[in-house]
Amino acid sequence: MSVHIKGISSFFVGEELVTLEGLSAELRYSIPGNPPRLSSPNGTHAVGQLYVQKVELVQPRAKFPLMMWHGGGLSGVTWETTPDGRTGWQDFFLRHGHNTLVSDASERGRASWPMYPEIAEAKPEHRPIDVAWHMFRFGPPGGYHRDPKKRITFDGLLFPIAFADQFLCQFVARWTDRSSDDRAQKSYDAYVQAAGPAVIIAHSQGGYYAINSASRYPDAVKALILIEPVVPIAEEFSVEQLRSIPVLMVLGDNKPANERRSNFLSKLMEVSACVEVFDLPAMGIYGNSHMIMMDRNSDAVAALIQDWIRKKDLMQ
Amino acid sequence: MSVHIKGISSFFVGEELVTLEGLSAELRYSIPGNPPRLSSPNGTHAVGQLYVQKVELVQPRAKFPLMMWHGGGLSGVTWETTPDGRTGWQDFFLRHGHNTLVSDASERGRASWPMYPEIAEAKPEHRPIDVAWHMFRFGPPGGYHRDPKKRITFDGLLFPIAFADQFLCQFVARWTDRSSDDRAQKSYDAYVQAAGPAVIIAHSQGGYYAINSASRYPDAVKALILIEPVVPIAEEFSVEQLRSIPVLMVLGDNKPANERRSNFLSKLMEVSACVEVFDLPAMGIYGNSHMIMMDRNSDAVAALIQDWIRKKDLMQ
Repeated sequence: MSVHIKGISSFFVGEELVTLEGLSAELRYSIPGNPPRLSSPNGTHAVGQLYVQKVELVQPRAKFPLMMWHGGGLSGVTWETTPDGRTGWQDFFLRHGHNTLVSDASERGRASWPMYPEIAEAKPEHRPIDVAWHMFRFGPPGGYHRDPKKRITFDGLLFPIAFADQFLCQFVARWTDRSSDDRAQKSYDAYVQAAGPAVIIAHSQGGYYAINSASRYPDAVKALILIEPVVPIAEEFSVEQLRSIPVLMVLGDNKPANERRSNFLSKLMEVSACVEVFDLPAMGIYGNSHMIMMDRNSDAVAALIQDWIRKKDLMQ
Repeated sequence: MSVHIKGISSFFVGEELVTLEGLSAELRYSIPGNPPRLSSPNGTHAVGQLYVQKVELVQPRAKFPLMMWHGGGLSGVTWETTPDGRTGWQDFFLRHGHNTLVSDASERGRASWPMYPEIAEAKPEHRPIDVAWHMFRFGPPGGYHRDPKKRITFDGLLFPIAFADQFLCQFVARWTDRSSDDRAQKSYDAYVQAAGPAVIIAHSQGGYYAINSASRYPDAVKALILIEPVVPIAEEFSVEQLRSIPVLMVLGDNKPANERRSNFLSKLMEVSACVEVFDLPAMGIYGNSHMIMMDRNSDAVAALIQDWIRKKDLMQ
């Protein structure tokens, strides 16, 4: 099956121009064999921009474009091919008639990252796969091993762990200070205003940003599809603005208790009749990790989501 | 006009796994409202990987896929939309029947970058647009100004300087030490072996890597299209392996003398009968900057390149 596209394009949104001055220039090697050149960081830099790659169909069948927001320490690559080389969710939703907008949040991937400590605060986090192994619920702490045969997983895990190193290649540095979060949120807000109305599918940390942007610009967000999301703290967040936005939350297997998420859902459900949760193991679907879009049943879960989108009258 | 594609996918190539140990864990804020978590960098990281996004046509008309390699301090975004929002060269060559492979070199864009100084040496260069202004031949040194109306350009410049800030958003950090260069070359070499045979179109620093990879794996490179390239030093480089590879060099306007490039071309032309140079101003095309694929005549120059590809019998 093929896809008829109008074209592929990209743009940046949410940048702020910052001028550095008074820093010293350094002699830098640049091209093998050339003498070093004097390089000065003084001048104007772009900071906080978000990168968006847009694929437009000749005949979209969805009413609104689909924005795909990745999680923390990752980039838009999340939505492309799975680590074992199957087609990703970008491809799936293109084939199902959605124009796709795949973004890299500020400071990640093609969105670039600013000098630190001159612009960004402190040093970012580089997460080894050993740490991600348990956080992403592939298996118990310490379960990663260089030798794929020695990797310890949860029973029935659907993540393709033989290809964990291809997944590791997707990891990007993550600033963990509050000003970085504020910059990311600001450019997501600008993005929603510039490129909405849209349906947003957001993963993990991206869910937090998506919920915030939706609550600020509810007219620009036609549905929120939250994959294993981080959510705002219920006590500090007003859910009123979300009351008319269809929300779907999709959760995998082997989850620890998450009071923050439960509290948020309860509060949201008090004001909204259009919130649904696909708790996959409760639906008889076992073995999904935090990276549902990469698990071996990724297409089957995407089909459930597509069905929900259709039922919400978001297809033409 | 539309494009019929089989799909969009991506992969990484050339990664090396590096295990860090003995570094101290830090308390890090991660999600607003959550207590800080202890974050350890100890464990396995991927280093040196190159990112590739592949778009496959249903019916390619070119004999080989087209690899698009960006220049220093930039990413694969080079080949997408122009800063003023016209379609980029990726789109142009897709429409002309080429499967495209757009990459981000190691340490740039979606290829991620490693911790420094623990893995990468020293601190990378963050180039302000003030410095790029003259290096990319938009105008004289000091010609950039925040106010687009006050920007000073070379006469007849074709770069869309009113959108220079969108271009600035594309800038990524650049390591300038030799080990970074070696890593980039190593993953480009792995890429050519894994995804070739292909035609390579390479810009600036990417030209240096492309010439090196082609000379090591000449069977995997069916043509080299070098846009304003950096070239190896003639005296230190053996051109023998390039003798059967068609080479096209495309050069813009307002160039300073470049003895290194002239020497390389002379030496290459001694052994090869299939080297051509499109020196645009010598052909009556004036005003191109270093970023020819973004200049206002980008489609016209792409058409000249496509014509050269056709004449080299690289279309079906």
